[in-house]
Amino acid sequence: MAVIALLTDFGAADPYVAAMKAVIVSRCDASVIDLTHEIAPFDVFGAGWFLRTVTPHFSGETARPVVFVSVVDPGVGSPRRILLAVRKHHFYLAPDNGLLSLLPWSDWRMFSVENGAYFLPGGSMTFHGRDRFSPVAAALARGAAPEEMGPRIDPESIARLPYEQPSYGPDRAKGTVVAIDRFGNVVTDVESARIPGAARVEVGPEIITARATSYSEISAGAFFLTGSSGTIEVSVARGSAAEMLHVARFDRVEVHVGT
Amino acid sequence: MAVIALLTDFGAADPYVAAMKAVIVSRCDASVIDLTHEIAPFDVFGAGWFLRTVTPHFSGETARPVVFVSVVDPGVGSPRRILLAVRKHHFYLAPDNGLLSLLPWSDWRMFSVENGAYFLPGGSMTFHGRDRFSPVAAALARGAAPEEMGPRIDPESIARLPYEQPSYGPDRAKGTVVAIDRFGNVVTDVESARIPGAARVEVGPEIITARATSYSEISAGAFFLTGSSGTIEVSVARGSAAEMLHVARFDRVEVHVGT
Amino acid sequence: MAVIALLTDFGAADPYVAAMKAVIVSRCDASVIDLTHEIAPFDVFGAGWFLRTVTPHFSGETARPVVFVSVVDPGVGSPRRILLAVRKHHFYLAPDNGLLSLLPWSDWRMFSVENGAYFLPGGSMTFHGRDRFSPVAAALARGAAPEEMGPRIDPESIARLPYEQPSYGPDRAKGTVVAIDRFGNVVTDVESARIPGAARVEVGPEIITARATSYSEISAGAFFLTGSSGTIEVSVARGSAAEMLHVARFDRVEVHVGT
Repeated sequence: MAVIALLTDFGAADPYVAAMKAVIVSRCDASVIDLTHEIAPFDVFGAGWFLRTVTPHFSGETARPVVFVSVVDPGVGSPRRILLAVRKHHFYLAPDNGLLSLLPWSDWRMFSVENGAYFLPGGSMTFHGRDRFSPVAAALARGAAPEEMGPRIDPESIARLPYEQPSYGPDRAKGTVVAIDRFGNVVTDVESARIPGAARVEVGPEIITARATSYSEISAGAFFLTGSSGTIEVSVARGSAAEMLHVARFDRVEVHVGT
Repeated sequence: MAVIALLTDFGAADPYVAAMKAVIVSRCDASVIDLTHEIAPFDVFGAGWFLRTVTPHFSGETARPVVFVSVVDPGVGSPRRILLAVRKHHFYLAPDNGLLSLLPWSDWRMFSVENGAYFLPGGSMTFHGRDRFSPVAAALARGAAPEEMGPRIDPESIARLPYEQPSYGPDRAKGTVVAIDRFGNVVTDVESARIPGAARVEVGPEIITARATSYSEISAGAFFLTGSSGTIEVSVARGSAAEMLHVARFDRVEVHVGT
Repeated sequence: MAVIALLTDFGAADPYVAAMKAVIVSRCDASVIDLTHEIAPFDVFGAGWFLRTVTPHFSGETARPVVFVSVVDPGVGSPRRILLAVRKHHFYLAPDNGLLSLLPWSDWRMFSVENGAYFLPGGSMTFHGRDRFSPVAAALARGAAPEEMGPRIDPESIARLPYEQPSYGPDRAKGTVVAIDRFGNVVTDVESARIPGAARVEVGPEIITARATSYSEISAGAFFLTGSSGTIEVSVARGSAAEMLHVARFDRVEVHVGT
């Protein structure tokens, strides 16, 4: 049985997510799961990074088709395309606004979703999540071929966000703070495996030199460790590192090998 | 397979929604979906309007039975009735406090849910959502006849909210702000199709004359457009129209044809 | 079909719950339900009390296996054990930090989850919810024997929280405020059936003597009633009793028989 995974900036209080679910469950028997609806309004980067973090874990002994429906879509109703990317048994639907550009894959087939036969009849100009993304997702979950949704396009043609990949030198790495989580952890995109052993992490006005392997190992002050995505994360025991260090998303981080 | 759709003012932090799900999944195999649990406490109008907005979209190629369980129930434990309304393959359970009165249908069969054989034994006086609504929803999802739940009643006998339908004159429409959404959009109940072409929208202290077809079309100032439910909505590009215009739910709106 | 019920302090905005769901739906066909993800960060007591409140309601005409996955885990990566408790068709996975100690059962079999063959390969030291709890839950949902997960241990050996059971004398009961809910209701652990008839409830600086059977029965001032878990609860009609009475969780409560 297919899975349809929803990712939006709609929040939980408005009827928008519920309307999407209504369209989906009326058209297929897929399992619908909420990834999140708490992306900040219009935060395309946040949505893309969330998706990048989560999708690798949709792979196990089973090969259930998964349709990822990502709707953070300030340009709804404009001529921006709706993208459908296909890789193995995964389908990614998203507006062409850079959201998908944060995913690391190049070996996917990309389509522009244009076939109105799959949209809700009489749909709106303001809510493609309900009127286009949801019925297309349901059709894919039922086995419709991606080719039916619209023309194949060059994956290189999709919109990109101005995100700079981390860089690695012989004794230094430069990267970006890509998320602050609920616990105040400062999540960077610097791969921890590139920086084994002693190091100092410069982020905000601070330099952090204590390296831990788990959150509970160090009981006072800031430290860094390998976060759950394999990147360097700055943390404070039972406190908010982001607040304590005055760090925000998109701040730059430098990691120096040695002490 | 049936769908059970939950709508409450219980929030996500307390164990009330989880207890309802516990009762349901222990009694049937229906797919349980959350419509919302973020209705403001005791906001019966908000719950009813949410339901009205969402239910039309539960209709597609399949005819899965859907049981809507709406629990915004400040009168729990009082003699207020529990209603079961049936229309096609849709079942609506709600307290008789006006919640269902916002739905536009008259062609439904209405029942008063009274058959204790379907309730949890030894149930409470304070949580009918768990002790009555949930087991009855599970029974309906398994195919129990609505007639088993209690006597049929006159749909005209249900409690009504003091909501005034919009009125339409030759060159003017009057309506109500029925919702402010997460994005600050001001959602009215004035049907946009009744007001084609140029118009001015008077809401709060402001008069809005710019008409757009999508949110991203106008980049500065307030404008109005046809929202996703087909009614007139006032918006501001990437800002909160409600805050900018000092508009709140239940404010009156007038739409004048022409400029 | 099995149910996997998730309970965490991860919130809805970060990708942690989604990553757990990714692991689960990729490994089994169980129905995944969210109990809550809004446990306050690191609030082990809150998680345990939530679980205690909810689990009794997972019992009905069907005996679907239910795997409860409770991840409030400040000690992740430390040598703290991962527990698997088994009772009838219910499986409880939780870190050994006291969370399970609030459940009232002694007739369960307890295991220490240690068999790495069931964990994600190359898992992290910071997110056992995804790397250990989720794949083990999926395996249990598919029918794996709990004995496969690790050695059986003495249920008396698990970590306990410093929670004091309520005490009952001939004319007085002493207990604890165990939760404040969204509506401001003050939930205690004093069993209401032990205190029939007139009584006075002392909590915070106030003495409450009005006893109601439902929330809507008394329209002004504070009162107490039998809450949905069968314990004494202090409430205010359409207001927050907790705020009005300056009561917080863990405050002591005394209930005196008579007036």
